[in-house]
Amino acid sequence: MALRTRKDYLASLKRLRPNIYKFGKQIKDVTKHPATRRVVESHARGLDAAHDPALAPIFTTTSTLTGETIHRHTSLMTTAEEMMFNSKMKREMYHLTGSCTGGLCVGWNGFNVMWSVTQEMDKDLGTDYQARLKEWGLGFQQKGLIVAGALTDAKGDRRTRPHQQADLDSNLRIVKKKKDGIVIRGAKLMICGTAASEEIFLMPGSGYREEDQDFALACVVPRDIDGLTIVETRRPSDTREEEQGFDIPTETGITQAYLLFEDVFVPNERVFMAGEFKYTGNVITRFTSTYRSCIGACVAGQGDVMVGAAALIARANGLSARTFRDKLIQMEINNETTFAMGVGAIALGRQHPSGVWFADSTAAHANKVHVATLPYETKRLCQEIGGGIVETGCLPSYQDFINPDYGRLIQKYIKAGAGTAETRARIARLIEWLTIGAGVPGCMHGGGSPDGARMVVFGTSPLETYAGYAKNLAGLEEDLPEPGK
Amino acid sequence: MALRTRKDYLASLKRLRPNIYKFGKQIKDVTKHPATRRVVESHARGLDAAHDPALAPIFTTTSTLTGETIHRHTSLMTTAEEMMFNSKMKREMYHLTGSCTGGLCVGWNGFNVMWSVTQEMDKDLGTDYQARLKEWGLGFQQKGLIVAGALTDAKGDRRTRPHQQADLDSNLRIVKKKKDGIVIRGAKLMICGTAASEEIFLMPGSGYREEDQDFALACVVPRDIDGLTIVETRRPSDTREEEQGFDIPTETGITQAYLLFEDVFVPNERVFMAGEFKYTGNVITRFTSTYRSCIGACVAGQGDVMVGAAALIARANGLSARTFRDKLIQMEINNETTFAMGVGAIALGRQHPSGVWFADSTAAHANKVHVATLPYETKRLCQEIGGGIVETGCLPSYQDFINPDYGRLIQKYIKAGAGTAETRARIARLIEWLTIGAGVPGCMHGGGSPDGARMVVFGTSPLETYAGYAKNLAGLEEDLPEPGK
Amino acid sequence: MALRTRKDYLASLKRLRPNIYKFGKQIKDVTKHPATRRVVESHARGLDAAHDPALAPIFTTTSTLTGETIHRHTSLMTTAEEMMFNSKMKREMYHLTGSCTGGLCVGWNGFNVMWSVTQEMDKDLGTDYQARLKEWGLGFQQKGLIVAGALTDAKGDRRTRPHQQADLDSNLRIVKKKKDGIVIRGAKLMICGTAASEEIFLMPGSGYREEDQDFALACVVPRDIDGLTIVETRRPSDTREEEQGFDIPTETGITQAYLLFEDVFVPNERVFMAGEFKYTGNVITRFTSTYRSCIGACVAGQGDVMVGAAALIARANGLSARTFRDKLIQMEINNETTFAMGVGAIALGRQHPSGVWFADSTAAHANKVHVATLPYETKRLCQEIGGGIVETGCLPSYQDFINPDYGRLIQKYIKAGAGTAETRARIARLIEWLTIGAGVPGCMHGGGSPDGARMVVFGTSPLETYAGYAKNLAGLEEDLPEPGK
Amino acid sequence: MALRTRKDYLASLKRLRPNIYKFGKQIKDVTKHPATRRVVESHARGLDAAHDPALAPIFTTTSTLTGETIHRHTSLMTTAEEMMFNSKMKREMYHLTGSCTGGLCVGWNGFNVMWSVTQEMDKDLGTDYQARLKEWGLGFQQKGLIVAGALTDAKGDRRTRPHQQADLDSNLRIVKKKKDGIVIRGAKLMICGTAASEEIFLMPGSGYREEDQDFALACVVPRDIDGLTIVETRRPSDTREEEQGFDIPTETGITQAYLLFEDVFVPNERVFMAGEFKYTGNVITRFTSTYRSCIGACVAGQGDVMVGAAALIARANGLSARTFRDKLIQMEINNETTFAMGVGAIALGRQHPSGVWFADSTAAHANKVHVATLPYETKRLCQEIGGGIVETGCLPSYQDFINPDYGRLIQKYIKAGAGTAETRARIARLIEWLTIGAGVPGCMHGGGSPDGARMVVFGTSPLETYAGYAKNLAGLEEDLPEPGK
Repeated sequence: MALRTRKDYLASLKRLRPNIYKFGKQIKDVTKHPATRRVVESHARGLDAAHDPALAPIFTTTSTLTGETIHRHTSLMTTAEEMMFNSKMKREMYHLTGSCTGGLCVGWNGFNVMWSVTQEMDKDLGTDYQARLKEWGLGFQQKGLIVAGALTDAKGDRRTRPHQQADLDSNLRIVKKKKDGIVIRGAKLMICGTAASEEIFLMPGSGYREEDQDFALACVVPRDIDGLTIVETRRPSDTREEEQGFDIPTETGITQAYLLFEDVFVPNERVFMAGEFKYTGNVITRFTSTYRSCIGACVAGQGDVMVGAAALIARANGLSARTFRDKLIQMEINNETTFAMGVGAIALGRQHPSGVWFADSTAAHANKVHVATLPYETKRLCQEIGGGIVETGCLPSYQDFINPDYGRLIQKYIKAGAGTAETRARIARLIEWLTIGAGVPGCMHGGGSPDGARMVVFGTSPLETYAGYAKNLAGLEEDLPEPGK
Repeated sequence: MALRTRKDYLASLKRLRPNIYKFGKQIKDVTKHPATRRVVESHARGLDAAHDPALAPIFTTTSTLTGETIHRHTSLMTTAEEMMFNSKMKREMYHLTGSCTGGLCVGWNGFNVMWSVTQEMDKDLGTDYQARLKEWGLGFQQKGLIVAGALTDAKGDRRTRPHQQADLDSNLRIVKKKKDGIVIRGAKLMICGTAASEEIFLMPGSGYREEDQDFALACVVPRDIDGLTIVETRRPSDTREEEQGFDIPTETGITQAYLLFEDVFVPNERVFMAGEFKYTGNVITRFTSTYRSCIGACVAGQGDVMVGAAALIARANGLSARTFRDKLIQMEINNETTFAMGVGAIALGRQHPSGVWFADSTAAHANKVHVATLPYETKRLCQEIGGGIVETGCLPSYQDFINPDYGRLIQKYIKAGAGTAETRARIARLIEWLTIGAGVPGCMHGGGSPDGARMVVFGTSPLETYAGYAKNLAGLEEDLPEPGK
Repeated sequence: MALRTRKDYLASLKRLRPNIYKFGKQIKDVTKHPATRRVVESHARGLDAAHDPALAPIFTTTSTLTGETIHRHTSLMTTAEEMMFNSKMKREMYHLTGSCTGGLCVGWNGFNVMWSVTQEMDKDLGTDYQARLKEWGLGFQQKGLIVAGALTDAKGDRRTRPHQQADLDSNLRIVKKKKDGIVIRGAKLMICGTAASEEIFLMPGSGYREEDQDFALACVVPRDIDGLTIVETRRPSDTREEEQGFDIPTETGITQAYLLFEDVFVPNERVFMAGEFKYTGNVITRFTSTYRSCIGACVAGQGDVMVGAAALIARANGLSARTFRDKLIQMEINNETTFAMGVGAIALGRQHPSGVWFADSTAAHANKVHVATLPYETKRLCQEIGGGIVETGCLPSYQDFINPDYGRLIQKYIKAGAGTAETRARIARLIEWLTIGAGVPGCMHGGGSPDGARMVVFGTSPLETYAGYAKNLAGLEEDLPEPGK
Repeated sequence: MALRTRKDYLASLKRLRPNIYKFGKQIKDVTKHPATRRVVESHARGLDAAHDPALAPIFTTTSTLTGETIHRHTSLMTTAEEMMFNSKMKREMYHLTGSCTGGLCVGWNGFNVMWSVTQEMDKDLGTDYQARLKEWGLGFQQKGLIVAGALTDAKGDRRTRPHQQADLDSNLRIVKKKKDGIVIRGAKLMICGTAASEEIFLMPGSGYREEDQDFALACVVPRDIDGLTIVETRRPSDTREEEQGFDIPTETGITQAYLLFEDVFVPNERVFMAGEFKYTGNVITRFTSTYRSCIGACVAGQGDVMVGAAALIARANGLSARTFRDKLIQMEINNETTFAMGVGAIALGRQHPSGVWFADSTAAHANKVHVATLPYETKRLCQEIGGGIVETGCLPSYQDFINPDYGRLIQKYIKAGAGTAETRARIARLIEWLTIGAGVPGCMHGGGSPDGARMVVFGTSPLETYAGYAKNLAGLEEDLPEPGK
């Protein structure tokens, strides 16, 4: 089986129904429209990498289902080492694109998580979910599909459970169960990389109780399924994507979308959970532990690019990068921290009876807190090294840069150290894009909030065991339980 | 003398020659053009405030030159208390506008600094600079002018001194001294609030030695002086300023500009330094000490707005603001730190023989390091409280919000807790604007880099005196000088 | 009136009843006993300083009661400038002693706070407390007494109010009101500098309600009053104070004591509150705002010594202090932060109708959080600069240093860069003493916990006003109150 | 082969020549002397653990040399998993002892490092070092010896290389090569756990060049070898170890020693490097990468105890531990960070041709920076939770606690929430011991300084590769090399 090519991927995207919108207008061809072509290019680079001998060990692996060589992002990860390649691939993807490629990430995670959960459901309830998922997964692997994943619901009032919401659609739900499938309504919000994806893996956004069983659903839908309208969100400086010139200097980018489901029918063969609320907790727990152990690699990879960009802007300003050695080291430490701690969480994990590997929850969620914190320092340091020109993207536009009347003056004064004025301007714009512009990924809330992660750390750390160590060391005779218990 | 009104101010701006450009096009009327009207509105609110009885004590004071009531931003600050009102006014201006108003800040600072330096030059050299400055200052006070200030040169190669630059224009310089004035060429970059200003106070960008005496110049020029072309820089999401709707929800804003001087003639009565390089160090030292003691109030004021916005988004999400008490407290502590430490620097200052008060350098520059650091944490916390919707401005555009086909769905799913969908969207956009959008001020490099500030802290802290304390306490008999000395 | 001398002070201490104990034994003469002589020396240096022309402006002032020159630590502080001298004196005292001198601090604060509160009580209730306090204060000023201050009670169970405690003595209380005075019982814990003090200013440890009125008491007692037993607490490495040699290299030090009151009679002329619970909140609020604005100077002063000690150990290790410039700068910034922010809090304060100046609560309490945090970083940096020898005081004892058999080897290997082995050893011991030894002051919980300070910051910051700013800027039409209100 | 018992170990220690001193006096029996019995107890618990079925999987493994079950601390670690058990064992040892057990750590590391380096030397130079090491190693494993390790030399002047030192003994050196062995002179300083060890593994303290070849030496010596004098260093509050009562509440502890070598003869069979300077860099590089990936587990383990102690003191104060949930979470995150990041460094490592596994240098050294930083925050938080009683160990001594006259009052006022006065006092003393007392390990400089680690991070991070990523993303045409190159 030949690994998928960029050409095949782009052709596939063009065939999809144009159900994506931005700025109130339909996007006809996601591969060409300014608002989406960069995110498509990003994902295409992920496919290219599988054909690059130097990168193939990272971007491909052997299917545990078929024994064939597949794109890694379609694999079941059954060992710690395989899961560490998830991290390594993410870090590399940021090197290649500078930002997030959700279509190579979340669907993959969903496939693995649901592999384990469907096995549990099948065992307990006699369902045949895993067989369905396997059937879908074989196509996923064979075709090398790009699959976004969607968990986050609109949620409505944060203090109220789904079935108590004034608007029941606030969380994606099953409005009708038919013999041959389910009908779903609601929305999934802020979904990364949808515009570059061919399918979308839908999963429950939280752990649910019985009253909320209608919200317990998992399935995969084609991106252009009937009844689904997709509206791309804004991000900083996104209209520059429509402009000429280098004010966004990259060919790559990221998008996040609102997915609006209006009574969408999903046939049974694509449904992997439909009401089994008891298993939603496992979905969330495992999804986040994988996600949060690997996302450290994403911010590390973007951090590597910031280290490199900081070195370049220093030189373009006329200085040696070594002038800023201490700051570069701090940036590097931040990168290594989220990356290596995530790898550590994976190493500390265990294999589920279904064969899928899951990371250690405590370490993975503790890492999430760093993911939500350290990149902010890395960005700050990058801006500090770069000087005023990068802090708020403080240089004139490309149109001013090439203006026939005064453009030469702009260029005269932007030119500083090594390199041309354009080189310095491009690096400055890259840093703006990375730190305060259209390339900033949502690393804080992506995959859930840091406060949620903190709660997991607290819940999974054995406080009383630790108190026992202290008790033994202090030679205490009596127990000290929590008051009121 | 009546205090100036918004009406008079706007009329004055309209009378200026249209020498401002953005996106390659001329801006005809800064009071109406989308790229500049917000910064004009910001400054106009500063004038309004002087007529508001509740704010007048902050926004007005008594002239030490004439005894008349004047706009505070035109005053000579001769006591610590007067200078603390600089801080208080800045914090209040951020409450009113959410961002920076450079035309109420830098010219004022320049007036005070040059008041002291002209007195020194006049005393040492027999010049009459202070008389010229006084003459200009009387008009400044009487008319309540809005005056930007400009220090930062293009600089060229950062390792090379001005007279050694390949392009001598890399730093603004006197190309000819005439009997009745000077001719200047070069550029001042990243100058805040120029579009809203009527005049610009030019000062040297560094301390210079004899070889660099042509760069030692200070003067005030009309914003539309012949030979001056002004090009506005970009900032994140700046094109939204041209859009309909609430994707920038504020009526206020900030701009930064490149000022391009092509052999501009400045008459002597507006020239306050022309070659006296020995005094440039004093200009920089005093300018930065005032600037850096007061800028803590700017970031505190914007931080206050972020605290408020965080409380609102929490409620719009359906939660109590108190849920995030710990994070709000940390934000408040950050705000109080930069504000109160700046006030402390002022209190620890001293009066110059010219009558002008200057802050303590060590404390002011130490505060600058916080100004370049703590707001990043405050922004991060604001984004953390707000959730994914605010992190990268992750919601559809206004055009999608009102789209006749699917706008109702966008609104349905944005509505969450208290308030309408539009309310939640507006708050999310405000937070985006404050933390990663068009309202972000350049607090890290504005007024110089934090590394420069660190050097001042090191240079002004008496290391050997401190070593002496340690020596005495440790009962040492011998001295321990630096090796190699 | 002549300012008090060290000689007079030491003689006074010797006359006191020996009611202080440590290690289960009575301390006969606090001026000579190893456990207390260092803290006495510390306070004596404060008196010496008043006679040093260079330091007199800091250590003396003019009495607002008599117009005479007095020791500053006995003054009523009626202006911001006078209160800033409290900070300046504290920083200087740390330079002279390396640690805390509670007898020059808390009694002074108590005098000022009670001056304002007695005036309020007298006005509202017709009492004559201020007259009593003035009478005592005149003696305080005339004699230049050293007066510790005590607020912290034993407290008992932290979740329970004083009158509900199983042991009512858990908070110091009035057990009997007599015609000519009150009888008190209970304890004040962790009281700084008691052993060096001649009197102790007792104040309520919290704000009380009616049921707790017996705990609402303020008075000054002689340190050796009948019924009072004082037990000194331990601190790290305190037994070294009894050893020969330089393992504690300083002649100065600090103590903290348990004060055990067993039905102590206090005559009316020394009682300034006896049951007026409504005023206890004012006592606490004002005491902490003064304390927390000035304590930043204490940690700054100790930080200065650490900066100096770090420079010395670097040289003793053979390196230039400049090698560690970045770390020294960070230490200096920490010092300037707590100092200048405290000064800022003072400048932002206001004068009470009684004439006494009080600092701004928000800024003062925000500063307390830094006081409880930044010195830990300063210490860490000092240990990092110093190397392994200072981290845990990792060098042999003085007895080993002088051992006839192997002492020469110890000295041979301790000798490193500039200076003798003894010099390096002494500096290492000084740093140990400052960072992990007997000289570490209780800056985190001294004067109350940082969490208490955070609550004040939250309580005094106008959250709804800030929300109003955000609302105005975002153009919101509707209010967003806290849910459930 | 039976695993060694505590009894056998203690008997072995008693047989050693008494060459250890503290406070100028000889220590006759390290198993009983107050200064050393606690560190012996700590190590004995490590042997006990191998006999505890619940802990045996951590504390034992299978020898790769003999296939027999051995104490893990004597193993060659040939896989990532085996090395992760080093981390797991360290964390567990801190749970059991609260502090460092150098005799279970550094000799083990030395054995592994020298296994790889001897193979290289043998291959390149035809030496037979690995055979010697194997012979020693077989005994190490069979006897389950406790072996300290020593790298840190006295160093002398830090700016000067070993052969240039005024005193050549400043670094341990070969003074004579004999046919049957080498004679060494100099000192190793601050060596952990020597008093509890039976042998000491000596390694070079730095990478050396040819002129410094006499300093290139590695060997193992009996702790009581002729010519070796050992002097224990002080640590905070160490004299409490000689006192009655619970002022040190633990039975465990740590020591650090000066090892003074006066022409000590080491026979060839114990010498594994003697002049091969080219290989010293490998020794240091590998030693530190193993050490710094695993030491994160040490501080995590002590951090766990601090979490537990914080929970206990909260309850003893009358509060729920949950009151401090946010602080406990931060402590837990700190612990998980250094632990999991170290595990990640191991997982990212590789197997040396000799079979030994080594961790990834970049990640391991980046982790060292956290190890030198995060525990300080953890300690601060522990002190913050505990209140004033724990901050500086601020409670009376045990002798006061039991004093017949006033001891009852001390106990009356120490009793607070849950538990007796003694319980609260013991927990407070434990926290003092952990955070500012005799149990504080030297985690900052142990195994080298954080600045050294930072240099490794910088040296091993591919700056130009990262710059290449940025260049590609920004679409740059030209290269930007470092200036001057």
